[in-house]
Amino acid sequence: MEQEAEPVISSLKMRRIKKGFNRYLPFNLYKSFLHGGKIFLITSGKDYRYNVDNVATQPATLAAFVAIEKTRPDLLINAGTAGGFKKKGANIGDVYVGSGFKYHDRRIPISGFDKYGEGNYPAIKASKIIKELKLKSGIISTGNSLHATDEDLKIIKKSKAAVKEMEASAIAWVAMLYRKPFLALKSITNLVDTSKPTNEEFLNNLDIASRNLSKALAKVLGYCINKRVSDF
Amino acid sequence: MEQEAEPVISSLKMRRIKKGFNRYLPFNLYKSFLHGGKIFLITSGKDYRYNVDNVATQPATLAAFVAIEKTRPDLLINAGTAGGFKKKGANIGDVYVGSGFKYHDRRIPISGFDKYGEGNYPAIKASKIIKELKLKSGIISTGNSLHATDEDLKIIKKSKAAVKEMEASAIAWVAMLYRKPFLALKSITNLVDTSKPTNEEFLNNLDIASRNLSKALAKVLGYCINKRVSDF
Repeated sequence: MEQEAEPVISSLKMRRIKKGFNRYLPFNLYKSFLHGGKIFLITSGKDYRYNVDNVATQPATLAAFVAIEKTRPDLLINAGTAGGFKKKGANIGDVYVGSGFKYHDRRIPISGFDKYGEGNYPAIKASKIIKELKLKSGIISTGNSLHATDEDLKIIKKSKAAVKEMEASAIAWVAMLYRKPFLALKSITNLVDTSKPTNEEFLNNLDIASRNLSKALAKVLGYCINKRVSDF
Repeated sequence: MEQEAEPVISSLKMRRIKKGFNRYLPFNLYKSFLHGGKIFLITSGKDYRYNVDNVATQPATLAAFVAIEKTRPDLLINAGTAGGFKKKGANIGDVYVGSGFKYHDRRIPISGFDKYGEGNYPAIKASKIIKELKLKSGIISTGNSLHATDEDLKIIKKSKAAVKEMEASAIAWVAMLYRKPFLALKSITNLVDTSKPTNEEFLNNLDIASRNLSKALAKVLGYCINKRVSDF
């Protein structure tokens, strides 16, 4: 979302590249330099019909693909906001690093397709980043809804995911296809396992979560540049 | 799925184009000629980890994008199998033309995002095709699961969809971005509103549904070639 990206764009003094992608694609491309490294940021843009951000996995899939094709990155990062779980110790504004990527809304009860549906995309080990930058870590579970059903929650519980959001697994799939190192940073806007309505909590905390995300992302970028993935 | 595509590839004598897409993409590209028109067929290929077809909306999104970029089609068709509803008069093997495209698993209860989540992608009017080729017609509802939850069914009921499947809305989104005429043909493998388990019915009827789909697709292609979309 543009609102999630805004503090990053501003703090990293990123400049928008006009005509970053072909004229049919809604995505926006930004660029800046940090410690001699090139940083690109891609947002998924707006749906022109409803003037809202292109959230969920379909735009995320396509944005990840064109991002890789356009920028040929050494490292792909998905930075965004997410839901956490109080019983797993999450607090509003905590930033998690994804330790694995699953889906909670691809239920295909046919042998082989069941595992495929779960996603199960790999994460790079980021143990030094997590330790040095004092970030939390956990499996990220992706689905196309902000609102979780009982079925979603049952699958999330089974997968031991600590974070619920709407894009990471789609991007992890494209990263896996391209064998690109992939890191997800997710800042908590809402606690899924409390009685507060997700939509209200999400909107109320989007600003603080986005600012925390921006700070963590700047630190992670600073840490990663000029290092090998094996040193992350 | 390869099994859905096989009768089409065989009846249209399609040839596989090696290196149709870049080496990272799992998709397969086939080509043939019909009445002087060029026909391309794209399947989403296999997940190399589980050796199953890349079903659901994430591969469908990316396949639609690379298909359009690679072949610059005058008309994009999504031909596949789907679930129907007995109470709406569907029978196994019926072929439907999509009259609109919605999602039943993108629940985002925030103003604007709610409509965005529903999809609401346009279909071309295909009234002549439907009448002349004696096909059924209805709204297609897309979700990432084979198995429908009560919540899914509630949303499908509200949207008045006649067909439930796993890819069409993702492809319709990309087609909308590119302003490409888009037609979906869906052959019924299972009836969602009966007590039979979806996975068993799907596997039992996949062969007959795929053969009916292939016949309908050949007729639709024969009808469309050398005509304008306004004559469909």
